[in-house]
Amino acid sequence: MTTAQMESRTKERSLLGLKDLSREEIQSILDRALYWENHVLKVNQTFAHKIVTNMFFESSTRTRCSFEVAQRRLGAEVINFSASASSVEKGESIYDTVRTLESMGLDAGVIRLKPVGMLAELAERVKMPLINAGDGNNEHPTQALLDMYTMRKHFGDLSGLNVTIVGDIEHSRVARSNYWALRKFGANVRFCAPESMKATDMDAPYITIEEALQSDVVMMLRVQFERHESNVFSTAAQYRDAYGMTAERVSKLQPHAIVMHPAPVNRNVEIDDDVVECPQARIFDQMSNGVPIRMAVMERALR
Amino acid sequence: MTTAQMESRTKERSLLGLKDLSREEIQSILDRALYWENHVLKVNQTFAHKIVTNMFFESSTRTRCSFEVAQRRLGAEVINFSASASSVEKGESIYDTVRTLESMGLDAGVIRLKPVGMLAELAERVKMPLINAGDGNNEHPTQALLDMYTMRKHFGDLSGLNVTIVGDIEHSRVARSNYWALRKFGANVRFCAPESMKATDMDAPYITIEEALQSDVVMMLRVQFERHESNVFSTAAQYRDAYGMTAERVSKLQPHAIVMHPAPVNRNVEIDDDVVECPQARIFDQMSNGVPIRMAVMERALR
Amino acid sequence: MTTAQMESRTKERSLLGLKDLSREEIQSILDRALYWENHVLKVNQTFAHKIVTNMFFESSTRTRCSFEVAQRRLGAEVINFSASASSVEKGESIYDTVRTLESMGLDAGVIRLKPVGMLAELAERVKMPLINAGDGNNEHPTQALLDMYTMRKHFGDLSGLNVTIVGDIEHSRVARSNYWALRKFGANVRFCAPESMKATDMDAPYITIEEALQSDVVMMLRVQFERHESNVFSTAAQYRDAYGMTAERVSKLQPHAIVMHPAPVNRNVEIDDDVVECPQARIFDQMSNGVPIRMAVMERALR
Repeated sequence: MTTAQMESRTKERSLLGLKDLSREEIQSILDRALYWENHVLKVNQTFAHKIVTNMFFESSTRTRCSFEVAQRRLGAEVINFSASASSVEKGESIYDTVRTLESMGLDAGVIRLKPVGMLAELAERVKMPLINAGDGNNEHPTQALLDMYTMRKHFGDLSGLNVTIVGDIEHSRVARSNYWALRKFGANVRFCAPESMKATDMDAPYITIEEALQSDVVMMLRVQFERHESNVFSTAAQYRDAYGMTAERVSKLQPHAIVMHPAPVNRNVEIDDDVVECPQARIFDQMSNGVPIRMAVMERALR
Repeated sequence: MTTAQMESRTKERSLLGLKDLSREEIQSILDRALYWENHVLKVNQTFAHKIVTNMFFESSTRTRCSFEVAQRRLGAEVINFSASASSVEKGESIYDTVRTLESMGLDAGVIRLKPVGMLAELAERVKMPLINAGDGNNEHPTQALLDMYTMRKHFGDLSGLNVTIVGDIEHSRVARSNYWALRKFGANVRFCAPESMKATDMDAPYITIEEALQSDVVMMLRVQFERHESNVFSTAAQYRDAYGMTAERVSKLQPHAIVMHPAPVNRNVEIDDDVVECPQARIFDQMSNGVPIRMAVMERALR
Repeated sequence: MTTAQMESRTKERSLLGLKDLSREEIQSILDRALYWENHVLKVNQTFAHKIVTNMFFESSTRTRCSFEVAQRRLGAEVINFSASASSVEKGESIYDTVRTLESMGLDAGVIRLKPVGMLAELAERVKMPLINAGDGNNEHPTQALLDMYTMRKHFGDLSGLNVTIVGDIEHSRVARSNYWALRKFGANVRFCAPESMKATDMDAPYITIEEALQSDVVMMLRVQFERHESNVFSTAAQYRDAYGMTAERVSKLQPHAIVMHPAPVNRNVEIDDDVVECPQARIFDQMSNGVPIRMAVMERALR
């Protein structure tokens, strides 16, 4: 095998985003997740001789835990690394850290980082497969994969599905990964957001919250108030009034519709307390589905 | 099996406290700890297919490490999660985190948290067994179990044993768990504390430090000065003079008596530096005994 | 075996520093690292029944990860413990923590700590083997071992090798460990440093940076500006001008010479950005070599 071929194979094992991943690749990950979800052995020895690392340059609980559960279920050894923003302020030190861990002979690296564009650069310079666990506002591919997996479980098919994503589209990597991937499967993606939260880089129609309630899937995004100091919503209560999934709004949903959220939920802001676990909510199912999705993604990286 | 029966079985595998645990249940944990202490294989594969999580919403070193050693000796995979108080200020986010980890398919959760009463609520709403690693001032059952195990090793029987707990009884979960459990075995529990540290919810006599020195077991509690800004002891030295286990006080103990402490010790406050490892001190033995106790507790959760 | 013999054996398994380690001991670690580097199974079960702990009382990423990779490759279970300086300000609490982890039955402890002299005291009082992962300005033996391993790979033999260590010699445990160990193998160790960074406890000549460029090995140390507030270098740029490994200085090296650095590098201070991965740089190789070295050291501790 030539060096170029090897590099190409490494890229095939990385997961940098869904924008440039083919429908077939996505499909195969979703299918494989189903295999792992139904696997007879909860913890197996598939990758007992592999060591992977979770490199979180932005703190995270559930995503890191979800990857770690997936990795341990596959029998891999796991090295966790997390850095506070303060200790890795300069871009180059992220590169040095990743190269250092690669130098130690690790087989794959899950990475979350803030600077947009750096992941692509890292993937060019590093040989171990890299899996994007969220890079700035750009993409969060495993989140979108588990979202699609959750939708497919409920609806069977994604083609023609009306999915509305509600909230801060501009700053959402979850919105972007879902946008890019769902459209490859023929889903109709729409956004619902106030002017200050609209994105200019995605070509999907913006609809009202009333229209959003007619969708098959209403995906609520987390509001990050720290990013919107001077926007139209001076309080969480105002956001809830305008966009929150209240019990009243749930009552207007179609019977087959589902409510999703990437979590953690700001309860009584994006979603009311008593809606989070209502029959139409899929929030904790999404978390369950994250494990087999990440098993499939890790398997793809380590195969 | 009905849902009610399954729920009941989950509760039997949880360990929320010792107050409501039967003497027989406690006895069986102590007995099983002895089995694990003498087990031929230090690391075995008893629960090689299980994944457990240590969720520490209050920081801890030794308790988390002790649980982790116990879990790894049983062959389980371990996911550690710790949250600074700042990141989980609101009660509901503890619930969301626990539910999230449960959703990922974890088999049991060890949990330390501050808000009293929340653990019982969590246990109602969550299906995975929960093990209390300390909840506020309420209980710290595995600490009391290892304390009893340490006493049983030295005295053979707990019945009729005179145990005096010295220090900040009011704020001590260690005191409460020991109080509830020791009395089920016929031990005579007494407290020794200044007025400002007395508890009103437990029915045991308060005695003087001189009387305490006549006990079979003198259990010193950690002083948390940050909780007692305006109390009678303006300095650690004053506390030591009034209640500390000094070399002089050790000399007044009965020959068979032992000194205990849940650790970490404020040396030269509760216990003098040269007393910590004196022949009558059991402090590091307590830590050793924590591992088989926690193996027995984890086994009970995962069986 | 007598107690004295057992204690002596424990000390033989500890690695406190290289100053008092024989040439033969060092040689055997270097040889064994080669064995592990070439071992057919990346993750093996050599120490599947052992539990080790990494106790970092000073934060570290790469050293802790490197030890952890080594430990996991040998099949050991790993308990990580890290304490911020604030939580272990007093010397005795380091002792209590180490004793606590030992009490839990751990088989060996890797330790990084700040107070010089405390490690020797710990080793006297604790029975489990201790491995120094850096103690203050004193020693960092596994770093020097991996440095020597890196040199041996390139030059075959250390005897007569001209090694110049450049930078803050006074505060460098890396310099000290290399100094003590390299001389046992007949290497010529020289230092290059401004007056304010010279050490008085080591008997090696100081040379100019121009002379340093004629060495076989030029080992750059990390500048810790926080330690030199009022020194001759008011800026990183001034340090770079005087001592940095710039592209221009690299061009003056002998063709066979190599550039080393214990990492993390202050890019464009000690070493220029485009020099870090130039053909003569061994920085990421050093990191790769850290894993087999630490496997050999862990094996020595656990055997």
